[in-house]
Amino acid sequence: MRTIGLDDIDDLALGAMLLGTGGGGDAHIAKLMVKQAIEDHGPIRIMSPSELPQDGLVVTAAIIGAPTVILEKIPSGKEFINAVKATAQYLGKEPVAIMPIEVGGMNTLIPLAVANELGLPVIDADSMRRAFPQIEMTVFTLHGIPAAPMAVADEKGNLCIFEAITNQVAEDLARGAVIRLGMANAISCYPMTVAQVHKYGIQGSMSYCTDLGRHLAAVQRGEQGAYDKFLTFAEARKLFTGKVIDLDRRTTSGFARGTVILEDLKDPSKLARIEIQNEYLVAYVNDVPLVSAPDLISLLDHETARPILTEALRYGQRLDLIGMPCAPEWDQPGMLDIVGPRAFGYDMDYTPFRGAKA
Amino acid sequence: MRTIGLDDIDDLALGAMLLGTGGGGDAHIAKLMVKQAIEDHGPIRIMSPSELPQDGLVVTAAIIGAPTVILEKIPSGKEFINAVKATAQYLGKEPVAIMPIEVGGMNTLIPLAVANELGLPVIDADSMRRAFPQIEMTVFTLHGIPAAPMAVADEKGNLCIFEAITNQVAEDLARGAVIRLGMANAISCYPMTVAQVHKYGIQGSMSYCTDLGRHLAAVQRGEQGAYDKFLTFAEARKLFTGKVIDLDRRTTSGFARGTVILEDLKDPSKLARIEIQNEYLVAYVNDVPLVSAPDLISLLDHETARPILTEALRYGQRLDLIGMPCAPEWDQPGMLDIVGPRAFGYDMDYTPFRGAKA
Repeated sequence: MRTIGLDDIDDLALGAMLLGTGGGGDAHIAKLMVKQAIEDHGPIRIMSPSELPQDGLVVTAAIIGAPTVILEKIPSGKEFINAVKATAQYLGKEPVAIMPIEVGGMNTLIPLAVANELGLPVIDADSMRRAFPQIEMTVFTLHGIPAAPMAVADEKGNLCIFEAITNQVAEDLARGAVIRLGMANAISCYPMTVAQVHKYGIQGSMSYCTDLGRHLAAVQRGEQGAYDKFLTFAEARKLFTGKVIDLDRRTTSGFARGTVILEDLKDPSKLARIEIQNEYLVAYVNDVPLVSAPDLISLLDHETARPILTEALRYGQRLDLIGMPCAPEWDQPGMLDIVGPRAFGYDMDYTPFRGAKA
Repeated sequence: MRTIGLDDIDDLALGAMLLGTGGGGDAHIAKLMVKQAIEDHGPIRIMSPSELPQDGLVVTAAIIGAPTVILEKIPSGKEFINAVKATAQYLGKEPVAIMPIEVGGMNTLIPLAVANELGLPVIDADSMRRAFPQIEMTVFTLHGIPAAPMAVADEKGNLCIFEAITNQVAEDLARGAVIRLGMANAISCYPMTVAQVHKYGIQGSMSYCTDLGRHLAAVQRGEQGAYDKFLTFAEARKLFTGKVIDLDRRTTSGFARGTVILEDLKDPSKLARIEIQNEYLVAYVNDVPLVSAPDLISLLDHETARPILTEALRYGQRLDLIGMPCAPEWDQPGMLDIVGPRAFGYDMDYTPFRGAKA
């Protein structure tokens, strides 16, 4: 067991912004929720699956909706408690731990606040170790673990419980409810045993995210050699440094879609293009694809090394384009069907990204 | 207690088509379901609230979706059982009776099949005694009785349970699920006690509907004086006889909207106009409104006295326009807010319809 206290939250949140790969929402509000929870209830316990009873129930807690709305509609907190309690009550079993569904973006932090409020530990695992826009885009789906029964709750007391025969239907039903409940709601899905988390989850996600954030913070403080250490830790590579010369964003079919084009700071003939669907999904340099989902693409401010969310992109920004391999647990049959480039409509083959250690 | 056997189903279905006021779906498929249920399990018991334990649980069973889809997507039957069982399980209580949510259209008949399959009686009451397109349009809403917890189920095993803080939110959530589950699903809502049905429901709806159908069947057989007897029983009036000279139907915002214009068979200067939103909602003769929701408008084939659904309207049809008062239980504060002409967007005052007995 380790604990996360007030001193760790900034690192965790910074790592979460990086793993959000441009999406997953701004971690600022979630950070405030977690800090409040630590002040109220003390440090948060992070436990590995081996430290918990193997047949114990683990449930997730997350925010679901449009990141732009989430920014404006501050969660009350009780909707997450309601979603978790509804799932537990529906299953007739008390949870032994809360799990983040995605370690990436604000959903990294929300489970901490929920767990502390409920007096439960957070299990050190997740299903993405990055942000993805849909519920079925998890390593659990690859192992046939159902997202349902799942609960969606709003801050007013409205509550939905869904049983779905596929995780795609689960996503559809949750999305339909969210559209009607204000576009920023709490969800609890993928209830499972500790043993299942151990066997099928991405292990050590919270620890990884905190360590990643700590390395990036050192870069931000301008420490000697920190950028290289950060890249090595993340098995990442800096692929391009340029300024934003074109930016096209539109909201269609419930996604924030768009394209951002960077021009090399030294050689204007070199262009990078990043395609967006809530997250940065494919990065090209001079039309050659260099990284694509499920591998991670991050854009860092060239001066401050701050991860830039898609909604924070601005003309003229100077950015570093970073590529990172996805968690090894993604390497399973069926991966490309749910999170490969073609799953998002990009007609290209997936080539696993090789970073600093390769 | 009375029973409904194979001999009664045609009358009940005919009454249901009339009370559907042009909407509520074609009763034919539901009639086949009920006939099968009677052959399998014997006659259906219809019981008044006074014959049942007052604290017993009553749940509804209905089809929800687009009538046009319902016609093409034949219910398997088990989705209704699943919706009822899910509601009962969620409440932790076994139902003592099934109630129709609307006695009007195919939802008059479906509860009979469901009840017989479950070995339960049907309670002789409902919440509309006509068809209305939305879940919150019930006398129960007027008395503050929640539609939730409610269950929506499809034929594949997908299931939603909703808690909603208002019946309008309940409608929104159910509609969102139905859009994602194929537009023709089972719903069980307004779970309540027998005592609540007794106090707040529309009493004797199933009996009324069967008797109404029996009277209309006599008209259809051309029995002497039958039309007058039918009108007297229904407190109805024949307002117009004409042929369809204009018909405009369109599907917008999830409603089948439209207008049908009849020209008087004898005097072409006299025109009747009926406005449609799933059901016939307002009827004008020479631009004077004669009937509006919540009172009932039916169009009967002039020769055969067959009730004509909105989707069966055809150019050149010769039709009788019939007005009927709504069930007296509708006469409560708040009625016009949920089922008056302005609730459907018609800028006119409501004048209660006075029929043959007035």
